[in-house]
Amino acid sequence: MPERMLLQIDMKINQRILLARTPQGLPLVEDFSSDEVAVVSPADGQFLSRTIFLSLDPYYRNVMKNSPVYPERLAPGDVMIGETVAEVIESCHAQYQVGDFVLVRNGWQQYALSDGSGVHKLNPIELDSINAPLSTALGVLGMPGLTGYAGTLALAEPAVGETFVVSAATGPVGSTAGQVARMAGARVVGIAGSDEKCAYAVRELNFAACINYKNNDKPGELARALKRVCPDGINAYFDNVGGTTLTAVLGNLALHARIVLCGMIEAYSMDTPPPGPFLGPLVGARATIKGLVVYDHSARMPEMRQVIGTWIRHGQFHYREDITDGLLAAPAAFCRLMRGGNFGKALVRVADA
Amino acid sequence: MPERMLLQIDMKINQRILLARTPQGLPLVEDFSSDEVAVVSPADGQFLSRTIFLSLDPYYRNVMKNSPVYPERLAPGDVMIGETVAEVIESCHAQYQVGDFVLVRNGWQQYALSDGSGVHKLNPIELDSINAPLSTALGVLGMPGLTGYAGTLALAEPAVGETFVVSAATGPVGSTAGQVARMAGARVVGIAGSDEKCAYAVRELNFAACINYKNNDKPGELARALKRVCPDGINAYFDNVGGTTLTAVLGNLALHARIVLCGMIEAYSMDTPPPGPFLGPLVGARATIKGLVVYDHSARMPEMRQVIGTWIRHGQFHYREDITDGLLAAPAAFCRLMRGGNFGKALVRVADA
Repeated sequence: MPERMLLQIDMKINQRILLARTPQGLPLVEDFSSDEVAVVSPADGQFLSRTIFLSLDPYYRNVMKNSPVYPERLAPGDVMIGETVAEVIESCHAQYQVGDFVLVRNGWQQYALSDGSGVHKLNPIELDSINAPLSTALGVLGMPGLTGYAGTLALAEPAVGETFVVSAATGPVGSTAGQVARMAGARVVGIAGSDEKCAYAVRELNFAACINYKNNDKPGELARALKRVCPDGINAYFDNVGGTTLTAVLGNLALHARIVLCGMIEAYSMDTPPPGPFLGPLVGARATIKGLVVYDHSARMPEMRQVIGTWIRHGQFHYREDITDGLLAAPAAFCRLMRGGNFGKALVRVADA
Repeated sequence: MPERMLLQIDMKINQRILLARTPQGLPLVEDFSSDEVAVVSPADGQFLSRTIFLSLDPYYRNVMKNSPVYPERLAPGDVMIGETVAEVIESCHAQYQVGDFVLVRNGWQQYALSDGSGVHKLNPIELDSINAPLSTALGVLGMPGLTGYAGTLALAEPAVGETFVVSAATGPVGSTAGQVARMAGARVVGIAGSDEKCAYAVRELNFAACINYKNNDKPGELARALKRVCPDGINAYFDNVGGTTLTAVLGNLALHARIVLCGMIEAYSMDTPPPGPFLGPLVGARATIKGLVVYDHSARMPEMRQVIGTWIRHGQFHYREDITDGLLAAPAAFCRLMRGGNFGKALVRVADA
């Protein structure tokens, strides 16, 4: 078949994952489809990169329903959006050379063009020096890390001796928030969804305790479990989940408690927002709830990378990645993430570095 | 009937209103009873006072269900608790003389003993100088006034040109909060429960607008009404009611909005707290919710009295009282208050000054 041979020589194929339909509730693999198109060469002012790691983040589900909170829009047939680490392989852009590694929103595909806007160059040598692979630019040394770092220092403000609670405690945001609070002198209590995650939070992340919410799912159980491990009340809570976990925390507030709202993973899969917690306990506790958007803290990215990088180098800070191989496995990995099945930062290895 | 004659000569009768039973939901007059007992003379270190004004406050309903937020406890048969203005008529207490007017928690009765703890002397001459009757010590120049004043300045922090929204806008707390925000340069929008109250808020309190929530009670209507009168979003919200009003405000937040939780009148009559609003909008708006307890701001009482007193004297600040005559009418007046039927600070005139 000489025609097919010719195509393989002339054209590089770009495998893509598309949104097939808007999910109802939790996403299903059937909500995605895939196709293959020819890779297009960059025009002037553009570069072409090949995706190495695709980040899977819960907020993608919110973009899939076109939440007005995000600038991106998604309709059936569109390539799924997403942050990636990629390598520049062709460049007509003065600032990017072939061989550069970049943080770029290639989405769920093997290759993409970029005009450089919103792109950040990565320094693999610098990452190597702290034993941090390229993938960490999407996790602990990227936006999730900054979310946990800046949200904790700027909004939760844990003080020495205080009790700091974090949900989704072994995820990239939660584990960073908890470890930053621990380094700031707080006693950290995690909430996570399996005994294995809780054991990791205590043994590896050095949290004082970690509660498996799935073992405490009857009404009032999580609140009572928190009371047992936080007998003096909760001074700060970094909330990655909302829902009944937030309600349980509100039942255990210390005076002047700070609650940072970061994520509401449960609500992302709902078309109609669920009701929230009764806010009465906030009054008695003189507590504060604050909304966190990581982009407000972008200026602290270099500081975060230096501080956490140093902790990683000294073995004082740990992180975990949950890597799925192959772009075609991304939909299933994303569905697993949205059900809390990941253990660590969810990534898809689209190609080898 | 010489025996009865004798009693009338020897004994002063104290009429009291008792809690007859713990209310289910909104209070009913049948939840109260009354009796008459002999007035007891003060022992050493005590004084006896006669109640002139009884303050009716929504939080009494919370005490009636023995909410742990309050130090006071109430069981069926107990005299109803409450703040009063009273006149000292017998004294064995070094610091209180017959003829002194005091702010004291006599509760719902004509006479009570006090050992002076928690009591504040009033200065009728000072109040006269700003045309403020004794009753204002229970309203605009008392705890409700301080709640609106300190809650607005310390927590809501309205800035010049900002949009400030307040619910229960013509009540003692709301009307103070709104007028303080207006004096601080904010554009004030009230939310109240009748056209008459709204007209008062605009004409007398100089609010920019006031929305009658009862005319906007279908899903989404109040949020849309707020959007019309707050086209640039709501910068600060002083929340006296919670519930669907808070949800409507959350749909219209400006960036970095501050929400002060002061009261949740709806929830006071519920045994099981109702769900709260979906908190998602807080994140996008980077908004803050803060719980307010007026006792934290007691040190600002003299400042508040001076500032608001001056405004009253200059005709820049208005207040309204809703006075019911006679102690026996207190239960009905309280039930009316809990249904939003009052127009201004709810008081019972138990005796003439």
